[in-house]
Amino acid sequence: MQSDDLLKQVNFIKEIDKLKYIQRKTKLFNSERQENDAEHSWHLAMMTIVLAEHSDKPIDVLKVLKMVLIHDIVEIDAGDTFIYDSLKDHTNTDEELLAAKRIFGLLPADQAEEFIAIWNEFEEGMTDEAKFARAMDRFEPLLQNTSNNGGTWAEFNVPYQKVYDKKKAIKDGSASIWNYAENLIDESVKKGILKK
Amino acid sequence: MQSDDLLKQVNFIKEIDKLKYIQRKTKLFNSERQENDAEHSWHLAMMTIVLAEHSDKPIDVLKVLKMVLIHDIVEIDAGDTFIYDSLKDHTNTDEELLAAKRIFGLLPADQAEEFIAIWNEFEEGMTDEAKFARAMDRFEPLLQNTSNNGGTWAEFNVPYQKVYDKKKAIKDGSASIWNYAENLIDESVKKGILKK
Repeated sequence: MQSDDLLKQVNFIKEIDKLKYIQRKTKLFNSERQENDAEHSWHLAMMTIVLAEHSDKPIDVLKVLKMVLIHDIVEIDAGDTFIYDSLKDHTNTDEELLAAKRIFGLLPADQAEEFIAIWNEFEEGMTDEAKFARAMDRFEPLLQNTSNNGGTWAEFNVPYQKVYDKKKAIKDGSASIWNYAENLIDESVKKGILKK
Repeated sequence: MQSDDLLKQVNFIKEIDKLKYIQRKTKLFNSERQENDAEHSWHLAMMTIVLAEHSDKPIDVLKVLKMVLIHDIVEIDAGDTFIYDSLKDHTNTDEELLAAKRIFGLLPADQAEEFIAIWNEFEEGMTDEAKFARAMDRFEPLLQNTSNNGGTWAEFNVPYQKVYDKKKAIKDGSASIWNYAENLIDESVKKGILKK
């Protein structure tokens, strides 16, 4: 006999394979190839275990890992929203909430509830875990764009102030990573790959 | 001032981007597209948080996550070894050990040591965490191949007994997942997508 829960979990595991087809605007390091959401989520998880010691507050690393691993799964239905898109705000949209309910809803009820709560916590960005997870989510494309001669900043003409305003969320998670990030942004202006 | 540790960690984070270029033999679900190691590692991490409750032994989920997230990083230097390759045994080869030392060695010394130890623990497969992590690593391609009309079994003419022998490692991590997996293997024989 096979438990009903396991069947639901396997269905969910199959469904989330689709995350590998969701393309981000950002390219891989030193590359012309766009990153997909599954690759991005893996990289954030790696950054979390490597950089957790730089969190300004004590954090539950397992919870941060769950956040970064699942944070983009809603994009299977809702699609990737470019962070500098001026028409569509990259926040917890109705479309994303519907997606969360459908996709996490494939899981057994208690697990569905847990995953939706973790995703919400990430989106709201209020807890220390969410702040650190969001810092990782801002830091990866900063490293990628600087490796790619400006990357999406150059491609979509994103000015310094817009970049700075988005990136300063890193400060809420880690002063030392923000210090590094701010230097990288300043250097990018000096190099002319980010326009002030 | 920027800490030397953070600089090393950022270098490591850039280096492991290369995992996104390491192609596995296995294809995505219902797909002709090969999976890369970063996508695979993300999927195993998701399976770990979803399926941890099926472990026969209590496990430290954070440790299992670290294992599955880093288990293939050595392939950046050593390349992917196909599990049914009869010439090259998929075990802790000298080449992989060198790769582990070089890549994890980019990190600060204490972290490098931790990551090499976790990778070794996974490779040896003796602890409860390693057994569960290895069960995930065997289970994902089983689900993929059955979704792809036999997938790599058909493509490389892998017979039932070889598949069964590799997959039974799932049993060491979880009786209930093994029960599901064994049924899936039997069904595959009945459907003719796996030759007995």
